[in-house]
Amino acid sequence: MPSDLDNLRVVLVAARNPLNIGAAARAMSNFGVRRLRVVNPYELAFREARSAVGAAELLAKAEQYENLAEAVADCRLVVGTTAGGRRELQHRLQRLDVGARMIKRHLKTGPVALLFGSERYGLSNDELSHCHWLMRIPTREEHGSMNLGQAVAVCLYELVRGPKPTSAKTAPGKKQANPAKSGELERLTRVLLDVLLVSGFVNPRAVAAEEKLRRLVRRMELNGNDAEVFLGMLRQIAWKLGANEKAAE
Amino acid sequence: MPSDLDNLRVVLVAARNPLNIGAAARAMSNFGVRRLRVVNPYELAFREARSAVGAAELLAKAEQYENLAEAVADCRLVVGTTAGGRRELQHRLQRLDVGARMIKRHLKTGPVALLFGSERYGLSNDELSHCHWLMRIPTREEHGSMNLGQAVAVCLYELVRGPKPTSAKTAPGKKQANPAKSGELERLTRVLLDVLLVSGFVNPRAVAAEEKLRRLVRRMELNGNDAEVFLGMLRQIAWKLGANEKAAE
Repeated sequence: MPSDLDNLRVVLVAARNPLNIGAAARAMSNFGVRRLRVVNPYELAFREARSAVGAAELLAKAEQYENLAEAVADCRLVVGTTAGGRRELQHRLQRLDVGARMIKRHLKTGPVALLFGSERYGLSNDELSHCHWLMRIPTREEHGSMNLGQAVAVCLYELVRGPKPTSAKTAPGKKQANPAKSGELERLTRVLLDVLLVSGFVNPRAVAAEEKLRRLVRRMELNGNDAEVFLGMLRQIAWKLGANEKAAE
Repeated sequence: MPSDLDNLRVVLVAARNPLNIGAAARAMSNFGVRRLRVVNPYELAFREARSAVGAAELLAKAEQYENLAEAVADCRLVVGTTAGGRRELQHRLQRLDVGARMIKRHLKTGPVALLFGSERYGLSNDELSHCHWLMRIPTREEHGSMNLGQAVAVCLYELVRGPKPTSAKTAPGKKQANPAKSGELERLTRVLLDVLLVSGFVNPRAVAAEEKLRRLVRRMELNGNDAEVFLGMLRQIAWKLGANEKAAE
């Protein structure tokens, strides 16, 4: 995980539900973000949240503030989150993916606060006034309001998503690394043809039967191991068909 | 919202907690995904979930299945989700952003199932064997396990995020346009298993033989036509093997 994320403070403002606080903490732990700040939570909710799966330590270290100004005092950038079609005319509103890029740049140089409002009302106008700009999660207009823990998860995911600059691991988006060699596929094609001739699926006088089979086998894009397994299957089937023929004679 | 999303089925397998089922439904509603399928949930949990904020209608229309094969039978692509460092050696594993791009292409042509496992165990090996490939949410290795509702939210966000794709290109060098339905692949798997049992390639007492075959068949990524041709071949072979057995008696 990039250490830049140590500059990120997730700030929950007036959260009401311990399950949501716990869920936010769990998502933070999942995505490698450690600094949680809570502003004016229901005291009981905050204490009850201290058992979120895998995030107990993070919750124990969470910092509690009585007002938002103190909670973001050390931050050089303060970003509010909002979901759905709510119009925040006083603020610049960024799409989440664009805003996350901007946040990542700022994380290189100093602390950034990412604010989430209460479950019921989101961030109030007063709370919004502490923000440099807002970031919008692209939910539907008809149902914009997200669950708090899910909103935190989605925002943090956007901050860590995408290719890591360093790692050079298994080629993404491609077929398996070990495609079967043409020679293997050709052997497979032949044995398959034999089996289909013996079993009567292919007529010996059929036009271009072998060619069609060859195409079919190539389209499977088998890896080397699977090609070998297939060849084994077909040989066994061919043997059994042959043995039966003999016994039936 | 792009109507392509109507082709997406979110499939919750053996979910145990009504709050999580409700949270999954809410995230679906937030991001404009409407088709929820549940496989073998705790009955009580499923009924209790029917009140998730803003997602009551979606939950009321959710389809319930007794097994995974039926739940994905009409889907041409089945993708499992996994979080953290768990190694799925038998499956191609895509990063979430890459996998989502692939899914979006498939959504243009037919139904796609996106599978989420139970809260405690994720997807079992048997359940994984129904998948064409897996998608990994980039959580930390030290704390990979995500909350179910949050995992759904993050995956669906990735599917709707960013600028809408403009061109309807059928990426060159990519797989066929008409992938086989899961139901067809399942029939193919069964007949192949029969043939391999009769021919002695598979020992009736072999462990997980069917599961391995199912994976093998999914890895071929057959198109609908090829799947049909294969099924025809196998049926002919099965018939021939049976006929020979009889003649030999």
